[in-house]
Amino acid sequence: MPVLHNYFRSSTSTRLRAALNLKGLDYDYRAYALLKNETRTDAFLSKNPAGLVPVLELDDGTMLTQSLAIIEYLDEVHPAPALLPSDPAGRARVRGLAQMIACEVHPLNNLRVLQYLERAFDQDAAGKARWFAHWVHETFRPLERALADSPFTGRFCHGQDPGLADICLYAQVWNNARFDIDASPYPTVMRIFAACDEIEAFRKAAPPEQPDAV
Amino acid sequence: MPVLHNYFRSSTSTRLRAALNLKGLDYDYRAYALLKNETRTDAFLSKNPAGLVPVLELDDGTMLTQSLAIIEYLDEVHPAPALLPSDPAGRARVRGLAQMIACEVHPLNNLRVLQYLERAFDQDAAGKARWFAHWVHETFRPLERALADSPFTGRFCHGQDPGLADICLYAQVWNNARFDIDASPYPTVMRIFAACDEIEAFRKAAPPEQPDAV
Repeated sequence: MPVLHNYFRSSTSTRLRAALNLKGLDYDYRAYALLKNETRTDAFLSKNPAGLVPVLELDDGTMLTQSLAIIEYLDEVHPAPALLPSDPAGRARVRGLAQMIACEVHPLNNLRVLQYLERAFDQDAAGKARWFAHWVHETFRPLERALADSPFTGRFCHGQDPGLADICLYAQVWNNARFDIDASPYPTVMRIFAACDEIEAFRKAAPPEQPDAV
Repeated sequence: MPVLHNYFRSSTSTRLRAALNLKGLDYDYRAYALLKNETRTDAFLSKNPAGLVPVLELDDGTMLTQSLAIIEYLDEVHPAPALLPSDPAGRARVRGLAQMIACEVHPLNNLRVLQYLERAFDQDAAGKARWFAHWVHETFRPLERALADSPFTGRFCHGQDPGLADICLYAQVWNNARFDIDASPYPTVMRIFAACDEIEAFRKAAPPEQPDAV
């Protein structure tokens, strides 16, 4: 059984849990408290020198890192249900939507960045909240438009089944909740979040459902 | 012929140019000066509501966004030469290395983030340079280790042929040069950069070689 090295509140961990659950794959859950620097130990750094969660440890000892890369791996090795469309243009659209979140929102707003703003730039809680909100809105405005304006958007980001983009959207909306982000300008995003949240595989991946949730 | 909407200095544009060149695909080059907000016009926003380059406009009018998603599309539609290995674990490794740069370094250090640090947090050139260097070193340290310690690393990030990870590495090293980042702790990264730079497809993708370079 693969070992999931992760943290309940980590948005990239939420993504990977949702993917594993959608695929119906069991995993051994191991928690690392980021606030206690538990990913900075030699034991963890030997798994991932970047000191970041999630890491998926396969049965043969291979350590997979980077949530989107791991999810694509799962989709290749366990093809059903598919998390990407079968046509290249559809795949490009879904990957593009996923990367709007994974490359434009999340990297700017994760814990180590907020900690660095505090440590190096003297930002207090209000400054960090302003930063977090700025980058969410900067991408959620075009994300809403990309979803609302496209004929490819269905019940989910692309058609009638959840996939890679929905996984990223679901995890990011959970993350936004920590900073009370106003979601009212994003009705399509929130409709898709709600559709995901009706599916047990997503709900069981949510931060409050994890054993290390506090 | 596809239209490449891009900017010479944009690191994500460099990635896409390198991929197009490696695939031997011709493209119509259109430049947008980011410093003059040329991606904030209605005309550009109708192509990509996020207001970001690169955008690859296909012959049928489809607008592809997000450099990694576009490169995967190119790799699926024009399979030779392959930019990803054929085995799922190898693909996960290459995507993971690419995403170390695309999800951990570049999003924190692009122009709009540096501009926001100046505007909202009163950072001068020295503050922005400190920020840029911090996030490069934070990921280049583990990137060097991931490359130097792996039996899969060859002349390039994965084996003897360049691929997606090398494309991201090449573009990021060019980006680092703008801030005089000390590359001496990263001999493996720089050896691979030099191997890429011996290939015309990479050299022709470099920022100084573009028609809008200043």
